[in-house]
Amino acid sequence: MSRLSLFQELLNGISERGLALLGPAPEAAADLDGLLEQCDALLSSRGEASGVAYARRVLAGFSALDQSQRLGFYRALATRYQPELGAVKAATAAYLEAQNPEHLKSLLRAVEPPRQELFRRLNLAPGGTAALVSMRRGLFEYLDEEPSLRAVDDDMAHLFGSWFNRGFLLMRRIDWHTPAYVLEQIIAYEAVHEINGWEDLRRRVNPADRRCFAFFHPALGDEPLIFVEVALMRDTPGSITEVLDDGRETLPLSEARTAAFYSISNCQKGLRGVSFGNFLIKQVAEELIAELPGLKRFVTLSPVPGFMNWLRAPDAERAQSAESALELVTSPSWHSDENTAKKAREVLLPLAAHYLTEAKRADGLPVDPVARFHLGNGASLDRIRWRGDLSSRGLLQSAGIMVNYLYDLGNIESNHETYVNRGRITASRQVRSLLSGKRPEPNQEKTNG
Amino acid sequence: MSRLSLFQELLNGISERGLALLGPAPEAAADLDGLLEQCDALLSSRGEASGVAYARRVLAGFSALDQSQRLGFYRALATRYQPELGAVKAATAAYLEAQNPEHLKSLLRAVEPPRQELFRRLNLAPGGTAALVSMRRGLFEYLDEEPSLRAVDDDMAHLFGSWFNRGFLLMRRIDWHTPAYVLEQIIAYEAVHEINGWEDLRRRVNPADRRCFAFFHPALGDEPLIFVEVALMRDTPGSITEVLDDGRETLPLSEARTAAFYSISNCQKGLRGVSFGNFLIKQVAEELIAELPGLKRFVTLSPVPGFMNWLRAPDAERAQSAESALELVTSPSWHSDENTAKKAREVLLPLAAHYLTEAKRADGLPVDPVARFHLGNGASLDRIRWRGDLSSRGLLQSAGIMVNYLYDLGNIESNHETYVNRGRITASRQVRSLLSGKRPEPNQEKTNG
Amino acid sequence: MSRLSLFQELLNGISERGLALLGPAPEAAADLDGLLEQCDALLSSRGEASGVAYARRVLAGFSALDQSQRLGFYRALATRYQPELGAVKAATAAYLEAQNPEHLKSLLRAVEPPRQELFRRLNLAPGGTAALVSMRRGLFEYLDEEPSLRAVDDDMAHLFGSWFNRGFLLMRRIDWHTPAYVLEQIIAYEAVHEINGWEDLRRRVNPADRRCFAFFHPALGDEPLIFVEVALMRDTPGSITEVLDDGRETLPLSEARTAAFYSISNCQKGLRGVSFGNFLIKQVAEELIAELPGLKRFVTLSPVPGFMNWLRAPDAERAQSAESALELVTSPSWHSDENTAKKAREVLLPLAAHYLTEAKRADGLPVDPVARFHLGNGASLDRIRWRGDLSSRGLLQSAGIMVNYLYDLGNIESNHETYVNRGRITASRQVRSLLSGKRPEPNQEKTNG
Amino acid sequence: MSRLSLFQELLNGISERGLALLGPAPEAAADLDGLLEQCDALLSSRGEASGVAYARRVLAGFSALDQSQRLGFYRALATRYQPELGAVKAATAAYLEAQNPEHLKSLLRAVEPPRQELFRRLNLAPGGTAALVSMRRGLFEYLDEEPSLRAVDDDMAHLFGSWFNRGFLLMRRIDWHTPAYVLEQIIAYEAVHEINGWEDLRRRVNPADRRCFAFFHPALGDEPLIFVEVALMRDTPGSITEVLDDGRETLPLSEARTAAFYSISNCQKGLRGVSFGNFLIKQVAEELIAELPGLKRFVTLSPVPGFMNWLRAPDAERAQSAESALELVTSPSWHSDENTAKKAREVLLPLAAHYLTEAKRADGLPVDPVARFHLGNGASLDRIRWRGDLSSRGLLQSAGIMVNYLYDLGNIESNHETYVNRGRITASRQVRSLLSGKRPEPNQEKTNG
Repeated sequence: MSRLSLFQELLNGISERGLALLGPAPEAAADLDGLLEQCDALLSSRGEASGVAYARRVLAGFSALDQSQRLGFYRALATRYQPELGAVKAATAAYLEAQNPEHLKSLLRAVEPPRQELFRRLNLAPGGTAALVSMRRGLFEYLDEEPSLRAVDDDMAHLFGSWFNRGFLLMRRIDWHTPAYVLEQIIAYEAVHEINGWEDLRRRVNPADRRCFAFFHPALGDEPLIFVEVALMRDTPGSITEVLDDGRETLPLSEARTAAFYSISNCQKGLRGVSFGNFLIKQVAEELIAELPGLKRFVTLSPVPGFMNWLRAPDAERAQSAESALELVTSPSWHSDENTAKKAREVLLPLAAHYLTEAKRADGLPVDPVARFHLGNGASLDRIRWRGDLSSRGLLQSAGIMVNYLYDLGNIESNHETYVNRGRITASRQVRSLLSGKRPEPNQEKTNG
Repeated sequence: MSRLSLFQELLNGISERGLALLGPAPEAAADLDGLLEQCDALLSSRGEASGVAYARRVLAGFSALDQSQRLGFYRALATRYQPELGAVKAATAAYLEAQNPEHLKSLLRAVEPPRQELFRRLNLAPGGTAALVSMRRGLFEYLDEEPSLRAVDDDMAHLFGSWFNRGFLLMRRIDWHTPAYVLEQIIAYEAVHEINGWEDLRRRVNPADRRCFAFFHPALGDEPLIFVEVALMRDTPGSITEVLDDGRETLPLSEARTAAFYSISNCQKGLRGVSFGNFLIKQVAEELIAELPGLKRFVTLSPVPGFMNWLRAPDAERAQSAESALELVTSPSWHSDENTAKKAREVLLPLAAHYLTEAKRADGLPVDPVARFHLGNGASLDRIRWRGDLSSRGLLQSAGIMVNYLYDLGNIESNHETYVNRGRITASRQVRSLLSGKRPEPNQEKTNG
Repeated sequence: MSRLSLFQELLNGISERGLALLGPAPEAAADLDGLLEQCDALLSSRGEASGVAYARRVLAGFSALDQSQRLGFYRALATRYQPELGAVKAATAAYLEAQNPEHLKSLLRAVEPPRQELFRRLNLAPGGTAALVSMRRGLFEYLDEEPSLRAVDDDMAHLFGSWFNRGFLLMRRIDWHTPAYVLEQIIAYEAVHEINGWEDLRRRVNPADRRCFAFFHPALGDEPLIFVEVALMRDTPGSITEVLDDGRETLPLSEARTAAFYSISNCQKGLRGVSFGNFLIKQVAEELIAELPGLKRFVTLSPVPGFMNWLRAPDAERAQSAESALELVTSPSWHSDENTAKKAREVLLPLAAHYLTEAKRADGLPVDPVARFHLGNGASLDRIRWRGDLSSRGLLQSAGIMVNYLYDLGNIESNHETYVNRGRITASRQVRSLLSGKRPEPNQEKTNG
Repeated sequence: MSRLSLFQELLNGISERGLALLGPAPEAAADLDGLLEQCDALLSSRGEASGVAYARRVLAGFSALDQSQRLGFYRALATRYQPELGAVKAATAAYLEAQNPEHLKSLLRAVEPPRQELFRRLNLAPGGTAALVSMRRGLFEYLDEEPSLRAVDDDMAHLFGSWFNRGFLLMRRIDWHTPAYVLEQIIAYEAVHEINGWEDLRRRVNPADRRCFAFFHPALGDEPLIFVEVALMRDTPGSITEVLDDGRETLPLSEARTAAFYSISNCQKGLRGVSFGNFLIKQVAEELIAELPGLKRFVTLSPVPGFMNWLRAPDAERAQSAESALELVTSPSWHSDENTAKKAREVLLPLAAHYLTEAKRADGLPVDPVARFHLGNGASLDRIRWRGDLSSRGLLQSAGIMVNYLYDLGNIESNHETYVNRGRITASRQVRSLLSGKRPEPNQEKTNG
């Protein structure tokens, strides 16, 4: 009897049967030394003959370790399975002299930490990929305290970057016919605008003018990697309320002109640093335009998570305006007082424009992580929205301000290049007006882009 | 309307839609310099924003190159995208001094040839994985003449080894309900006992006592990587005729005690050196025992491809017996002459036993490639079969001799270890008798293992 | 991009594409006369050429009718599309005389109401089957008031009985990987023990020792027809609390000996009278025993919905005991008072045994509908359970009493036959003891069946 | 491990598991009396409790009958399970008097032959639908000799008409990714232009400008019911060589304007009389136009199977021209002799036009079965083609003449109606010219429709 899920069946093909002979999951040794011996065996020739069995034992053993043993294991990954200094030295010398393929190969072999091969062999076990992703997630807890573990993290990140290459990912639409198991994770991992249970989820994925897409990887089965929520609308939304209002009416698809990406969330902590979002947004845009040729605009409705923090940080240049702005928004209900709100708007919008376009990190990229992401993808800074998100988080992070980033498919590449090579952010007239202190003309408020 | 194939649909999810906006496949430049510039762009920050588009252009451009341009491209991979010497030197020195994660990371980065990242980015394109596998296949033609290209091959092999890790493979049964596209490749790639068209194929995959299994990779869709053909039998077969005879009757599954792996073939030349066979045989064994608990034996019926060549090679030690053996088998019909055949058997079987157990390469492993494969997997040398394969190829390669290797699931690991660490080959009494010059006792002929 | 649901894709194959040329759903006439003309056309030769288009128009028109027009349509089905009296008369006479195949064919044709052919042709439209099932559901509202409509209902029931023949149904397991759309209906249609939202649902379908199975029909896509919930347990459960308790621990499957069917619910009102439950229970039993050969018992934990009503009905025979029983259970908290509860038990259990085995309808079958269903399936009356269901409904309907019916796969047929042919109910010793006034021996309480 | 076929998995869901408890297929009694007793049991109340088991036994028993027993079984279906005369009489009388739903129900019940319910219950068995279709196929052998069996055939036809209602069929594209099992049946059942093995099949289904579609029924799994082969072309083809020529080049899809249906074949003899072709052609047209909006014409290239037979039949009216025509085509190579061919053309084309438009059966429909099919579907008679099919069959049946029927989606309904109600065949100018004895003007030869 078939049990259809998105990919579970695929996975089962790989894994479940194989367990018949292996018998029940091996007793967990819960013994660090024993476990490391098995790692050695897995890396040795024995591992070649019985790799699946050893990999399985190691992963079972790892999951049975207690906290301190686990740290011990991570440390062993950093030290026991690092490149051998002498060998690196010798191989480098030999390569520098000979400069031929054989010596390059030897050099690569000497430099590649043995743990990389260990990880690849652990992946032989059923469920190995998921176990390794989870192993990395566990590692994060110790990175700050023990910088030497970072080399382990680097190796995992490198490996996952290769394994989770976009060419291996599967995009799937998420809707009300999606398995509950997947939907449950959408609820859990929504990081921007919280989903309050199943009814709320239904409002996000079920109406005809809503879309949700996720990337999956065949080896992780029904576990989504990242997902994006999209609202099909007439115009670019100026606030999250326009998008998520319970009482709103479904837009006939024939009237949709704008695809608004209003939330994008990663699901797998253990894949930190492996970037999917860029690809997901672009493939969704292509998918949507193939389905709905009437779509004219692909924009986001995005938070400005770092704005208020930036405002509060001492800075001579913007000292005065920042101070007055912060004063205005001290009262919890400042935004419902018309007068205060008006004044705040006049001060805060230009500051936000400044923050988004001028506030840079040491590497020259924007301080705001969301701006960094979308501008780095080749989007432009299209609109800064007053009263975009009046939730407590929205008020706290950005005084309720939100931003539309525009994905103009024809300009993505050139935007990106200007951004990367010349550090220039492509911004719309509205944004530039805010920067120059001019009020945008009223009618501009209504146009898009 | 759904079009069900094994995995084609999976692939389509990834690729077809994405083409909507990209438009028709880009005009092939057929211009090596232009192509390399696009490779540079793909590796640059531009590639980050528009990776899929650049990757697509490069792959289309590559496929439009003529022979000599293609060689030029491979050379560029070897030189333009190799590690920079100075950087390697500096990074090594820095790491040797500091020995911390940051410097290891820098060293790894300096040593890793940039073409590896190029390959990973080319994989962004729809169909990228297949194109890369095919790119490597094309490279093989030049490896002998231009050893400097071997570094490119090494990098591709390394990457494919990671991407085609067993944890990412899907095993599927091949039968008469399998898509014709897949079956056609089974016919094409059968490397051991030729399949003469569709009717012959049907006899291999359709009867209840026959099985065929293949590994697939999600990114390659309906392209099998490797497949194995299995006959479910009462006893270990002693000749390929027992297995493939047209007139044979189907064995009721309840009477099957032996699973005979009589053919295993790779399908993707471009994946040379990435080993699947070991995993496939073992997973098939597990699959079969789960389905048919009555199975008692997993054996192969294997060719001895190097025997006659070895016999013909000048060698003092075995000079006399080899010479007399070769004399016996000069006439094309020697094997149908009872007298000659009997004499030949007495000389050739011990020689074959000797060849299989004693003839070693410089690295200590058996000369015979099939022996190397199965013994390396942990199988033992179970039976040497007279008149196992009287086809012209069989007679030419091994005077018709075949071999049963035994996969005794309980001994695989220890066999493998003795083999690898002590260079010892586990052989049955029959084989040992042949070696010691004793005739095996008659009743032994009938037992298995 | 594929959107996997249980069967939605199957359906789409049939229907969605076909709409390309048909254009948007036809304007609904909302005009009864026009609609009936289109029905005539569909039944005429025009319908043969353009059946799909006409069927589509009729179904769209029907769904646009208001209440009173809808009644008009049902009446037309009863009168306009009934057999023609004269023709029936003539065909009967002719058949009685000739008694040959041709005349039988003519007679069948004359007697079959033309609406049956109308329904079959309406089924040509995409979604036709679902629309017809829904049409019948609408008809139910009028059946009591207008008995003449019953002929229409009979024809639909007859047709659905043929179309939803068990041979066309697909059984699928329902679990946490099932599409949310399907699960939502499980929540909605659970008729016995209410499911309070998604978390409660998860407790019913997700734990390893819980199962849920449903029948589907290919033409109805993801709409379940009927489903059954099963608890895998050590022993036969005596109360619903044992089954549904939030805090319970999951039973290791190796310890499961009993499959307890604790809820079975129909989902499609429009399929009333088409029986699925019998087949579902038996196929689930077979499915489970194939998966878990350790299972020894298939029992239900069932309500006794008619008990208290029966007790309250005036009846000379049981007047006294009934009265005393009813008196005992007047106080809302009688069951938490140990003394009262004990007395009530002594009176009510024998009465329940009496009710279940002796209270019969005019047709000789048990008054209790649940008893009728399970005994009619060939189950036996195994245990009557005190304090089986202390929910307000359970107390109201049956003073908290529940029943285990036993599906002893070896005796189903003989039980059924005794039941049908001789009106005899197979009951266990416990039940017979209750009937005879003997208390069952204590240890018997612990045995099963 | 999943084994993907078109629908096999679906079927397995229904059937395979259920066999676990039932044990191996029951011993076939090969005993007609015993078999009929089990039929009785299946129809009785016992059948209600254990229907699946009984149905399985009956079907196994039936398949074990020898020829003469099988005839006996068919006879029993005709007599033992026919309506009871007395009951029919009584029910008719009662209904004629009362004319209410209850009596209509009783009448229907009395008139419906009990074998219909028997067939429905046999359908409970796994594989029941296929077994019943095959049972009817077996019945055909006896229909001519024993007209009394026709009533049985009528009942099966009636039932199958309801079960295989177009609303339950699934259309699937057949291509090179289709399971070999399905393709094999396409080869076997192609009834118009023989497919010579797998390579020939590949030329029909694999090129980008070729299509093949089939209807399937969920209960029959991978067994196609009917399929149609389509060539996407620039212009309407005038001969089968244009369509099937081995050396032809694939047409770029962007240049396709015409979809030519050049072959349509039924696969299930046992479904004779259940019409699918009409629906299939129209759904394929809709499918194609959705995929390729550039398509302007849907035409057939059809044989004229009855032409030469009709010509040979003695008929006063056309005596002279027929005779001279037949004389011309006596020599086997007449068509390669330019002079003879020219003369033959002048005589035969008008005769073919006459045959197609005027030669009618007693019921007023065309004598030619292919004309009857397409004109009955609402197509028009578009072109009569000289040298359309020079295969030996083509020459024998129609002197090589073929016909294009035009499916003009806008006129299908009106064509059909004129055809059915007024017996008028819609024909193009070319055809009308042939009828009126005028030669069509040369340029008309090149236009379409």
